[in-house]
Amino acid sequence: MARYAIGVDFGTGSGRAIVVDVADGRQLATAISEYSNGVIDDVLPLDDRRVVLSPDWALQDPEDYLRVFKETVPAVLRESAIDPADVVGLGIDFTACTMLPTKADGTPLSLIPELRANPHAWVKLWKHHAAQPEADRINAVAATTNQPWLERYGGRISSEWFFSKALQILDEAPEIYAAADRLIEASDWVVWRLTGVETRNACTAGYKALWSKRDGFPDTSYFAALDPRLAGVVDEKMSRNIRFAGERAGGLSEEAAAWTGLPVGTAVAIANVDAHVAVPAATVVEAGRMVMIMGTSTCHMVLSVDERSVPGMCGHVQDGIIRGYVGYEAGQSAVGDHFSWFVDNAVPEPYQQEARERGLDIHALLEEKAARLRVGESGLLALDWWNGNRSVLVDAALGGLLVGATLATVPEEIYRALIEATAFGTRVIIETLEAHGVPIREIVACGGLADKSPLTLQIYADVTGRSFKLSASEQTPALGSAMFGAVAAGVELGGHATIEDASAAMARLKDVVYEPIAANREVYDVLYREYVRLHDYFGRGGNDVMKVLKGLRADARAAQPLATTSPLES
Amino acid sequence: MARYAIGVDFGTGSGRAIVVDVADGRQLATAISEYSNGVIDDVLPLDDRRVVLSPDWALQDPEDYLRVFKETVPAVLRESAIDPADVVGLGIDFTACTMLPTKADGTPLSLIPELRANPHAWVKLWKHHAAQPEADRINAVAATTNQPWLERYGGRISSEWFFSKALQILDEAPEIYAAADRLIEASDWVVWRLTGVETRNACTAGYKALWSKRDGFPDTSYFAALDPRLAGVVDEKMSRNIRFAGERAGGLSEEAAAWTGLPVGTAVAIANVDAHVAVPAATVVEAGRMVMIMGTSTCHMVLSVDERSVPGMCGHVQDGIIRGYVGYEAGQSAVGDHFSWFVDNAVPEPYQQEARERGLDIHALLEEKAARLRVGESGLLALDWWNGNRSVLVDAALGGLLVGATLATVPEEIYRALIEATAFGTRVIIETLEAHGVPIREIVACGGLADKSPLTLQIYADVTGRSFKLSASEQTPALGSAMFGAVAAGVELGGHATIEDASAAMARLKDVVYEPIAANREVYDVLYREYVRLHDYFGRGGNDVMKVLKGLRADARAAQPLATTSPLES
Repeated sequence: MARYAIGVDFGTGSGRAIVVDVADGRQLATAISEYSNGVIDDVLPLDDRRVVLSPDWALQDPEDYLRVFKETVPAVLRESAIDPADVVGLGIDFTACTMLPTKADGTPLSLIPELRANPHAWVKLWKHHAAQPEADRINAVAATTNQPWLERYGGRISSEWFFSKALQILDEAPEIYAAADRLIEASDWVVWRLTGVETRNACTAGYKALWSKRDGFPDTSYFAALDPRLAGVVDEKMSRNIRFAGERAGGLSEEAAAWTGLPVGTAVAIANVDAHVAVPAATVVEAGRMVMIMGTSTCHMVLSVDERSVPGMCGHVQDGIIRGYVGYEAGQSAVGDHFSWFVDNAVPEPYQQEARERGLDIHALLEEKAARLRVGESGLLALDWWNGNRSVLVDAALGGLLVGATLATVPEEIYRALIEATAFGTRVIIETLEAHGVPIREIVACGGLADKSPLTLQIYADVTGRSFKLSASEQTPALGSAMFGAVAAGVELGGHATIEDASAAMARLKDVVYEPIAANREVYDVLYREYVRLHDYFGRGGNDVMKVLKGLRADARAAQPLATTSPLES
Repeated sequence: MARYAIGVDFGTGSGRAIVVDVADGRQLATAISEYSNGVIDDVLPLDDRRVVLSPDWALQDPEDYLRVFKETVPAVLRESAIDPADVVGLGIDFTACTMLPTKADGTPLSLIPELRANPHAWVKLWKHHAAQPEADRINAVAATTNQPWLERYGGRISSEWFFSKALQILDEAPEIYAAADRLIEASDWVVWRLTGVETRNACTAGYKALWSKRDGFPDTSYFAALDPRLAGVVDEKMSRNIRFAGERAGGLSEEAAAWTGLPVGTAVAIANVDAHVAVPAATVVEAGRMVMIMGTSTCHMVLSVDERSVPGMCGHVQDGIIRGYVGYEAGQSAVGDHFSWFVDNAVPEPYQQEARERGLDIHALLEEKAARLRVGESGLLALDWWNGNRSVLVDAALGGLLVGATLATVPEEIYRALIEATAFGTRVIIETLEAHGVPIREIVACGGLADKSPLTLQIYADVTGRSFKLSASEQTPALGSAMFGAVAAGVELGGHATIEDASAAMARLKDVVYEPIAANREVYDVLYREYVRLHDYFGRGGNDVMKVLKGLRADARAAQPLATTSPLES
């Protein structure tokens, strides 16, 4: 008898459910729910007053998340025409760190009328970047107090992470901090809403909240050094009971069963993160094979048996991706975003006209033209830092660079140079991992960019000298969540015993493999040497012009304040 | 009684005549003649066969030049309704080095049927860049034989110059070299056609053909070292009788009188070069005031009493611009061209749509948007080397650079950064001149870009810390030619005794003056320091990535030959 699992993938602008066959991973149906309030980065969605957000803010509405369950799960059940009783388990993955303050019963503070006009009551989305002063403080205090965990995160933590955001609430809205019985990842919060059981997952705890399996959270004294009121944050508002991917968080509550049309008690997996859940769904449950989730940005995930300190990673977490392995995460902050910027800001009208006339997407047209160029023919080289550098320099203040332009330079040459730059950035990550004892034998790519751009994959193979394979699923994270749902159900209920079993049964690669082409590698090796030289010169202190420029830009903007101002105006 | 002078300015794509009042420089009429064959850079304009040109070739048809006289002079006489007998003199200016081989009677070899299918028989336009191997040889031999003149040209001569082109003819078409009784600048050739008298002007001889008033041409032994057949080039095919600006070349011949409608014997001035003739027409006949002719590229002209060696200039020539002064010339190879490249290759469709809807030129729209930015707000910095660097690095193999781009970067920010980059390049030229004893007190700008872009002039004033004034004439070179025509006529015939007199009477500045704004200077000083650091790092050997990239580009192109091939195919 067929058994099914459902995976729900919460992205930045929408949530998506898929239903798959537990035996072979075959996808039966998919459905999307766009968030009504999307990314809230301008004005709070209030009826009775206007609250303007400062630049760098990015919030969300928790009700949008619940609507995803209510809309997409019934839709996939309907479309696949399966018996809901045959769904053995459900898993979710989420962006991270995306966190919110709630009451003890899970009620988000943003739903409490008297708190709703305070932006700090809302969900802080992963790309909320307004907690930089708090991140700076966290890093400075960690450095001066020699925090042992700092090394796990490449020596620096981000404004996007959990305690940066928590500390910003305390700094700017102590009344919200005080009113919050819980500070919780949105991923754990939706699982709580599904099951009625509050759990905390090891993935976000490890990668975003400074927790490790061996050492737990940082000491109370460290939090006290940041702010005395923060000393008890873990025990007062979080939990030290951290659960691992594949475990069962609980069974579906009556309320959630009514939302979704699934039976009460259906197994729900411990929450997880989109990039991390994609790893076993891309067939990777062992060391030596890197998974790259290529979208607006790129995440690089790799497993290792031994724990190594690798500078410039986003972090490494024991059991953070697959139990029994140290999971390393690196990242490039602008990949698809980079190409979108180019299309929006630098592609001339005749190209848009040609694309329209030929019925092509503009990216497809640029790729077609760029693919006709030989390696090296553009005469261009770029540093892919339009959104700073996440790995291995961990420096958001770096900026983009393009060198070699001439009066004969055409748009497809720049487009190709930008693709190549992201490939060189990936090679730096690979070489850094390998130099520190984490070998990378081959690469499995997934995500929108991997599915859409053969040229990109061939360039990546040529630049890195690695075979690039592709996850068969076009919804790799959702498939991974479904797989963890099946593991949460366990073999007895028709699921799988382990994620390794689930991966073997349910994950697939596409037939196509992008192999490095020797002649291209030779030229790319020359270009890569030049890339590294520029990378180190501009990225490691040889010339700080990028920071000078950002400073001047900030000064110029401060001299003439923007129309939108205080985050707390009401 | 009113007296008039005519100036004819030969540009890259067309020739223009103006008629002006000798007393006050007032322009009465202007007329343009587009060259029928324009720039010949693809296929020779032959009826009976197809001769394809290699990349980098740029030829012209000498008959197009004579057509300029035949069309424009009668047109301005007609439009101004003056009596041709009241025209006291005529002067011309030309692009340089633009040269051609002729017979002893002045017949261009390209008009001789049996030679016409050989590209080397045609006029080589200033921007013919196919003589780089010859320029390399000229520089190498000059260096190893310690030629004293090399220093006058900043240590390096260009593929555009006279002997590079002459040597290319000898290398690739010895039969054309042998058939040529004369190798001559097109400027001198058109004066020859007007007067029947062959003359050679000091300006092109000095700036383009290694001649100096003190030392004459390089020694015969030097030419012999380049190629034994070239040893006698000066005596066999050129002339050592070099004449100065303002002298009378001769009177209009009967044939030329018939072309133009002017009286036989009308004074014709010694030929001159567009940028050089613009200097007195921009009111500059003394040291300390630089003239910038701002168009597709920019020429910087400045006078000095003393001869100084200034590294990286295009050259300095005693009496080369105004008699009694050393005339220094520097240049930036892409200025207007730079902005045109940007508009053609990097301005997105919505900007073009907005420009159309508002009836604005796209440059005007970009300027409007760029002008709203504060200094430093773009967060960008560029090296203006899209077409290499003419001064002070004298290195065509350098390429463009843009640093500081982010995902928030918009087109007008890049546009402004490109303008600023050319301003920084100008400041490097000014500071180099001053550091070597050639002071620059203020600047007079002329040319299309100066007339059209107030933002550019304000940025230049802010960046250089100098006042920018503007030549009143929108046809400054043609005015300068007319002034020299008036000087060639002399006082007795109703002209002027000297170019200083002509300048005082006929040249004017606009009322507007662009003064440096202190607050902007402060920020630009910071940016300029960063510019110089990048300039020296990439331009003086710290990092040769631009050359590596050009090498790879050339390799890639060579690996797949272009469809168009041999220049001599017939």
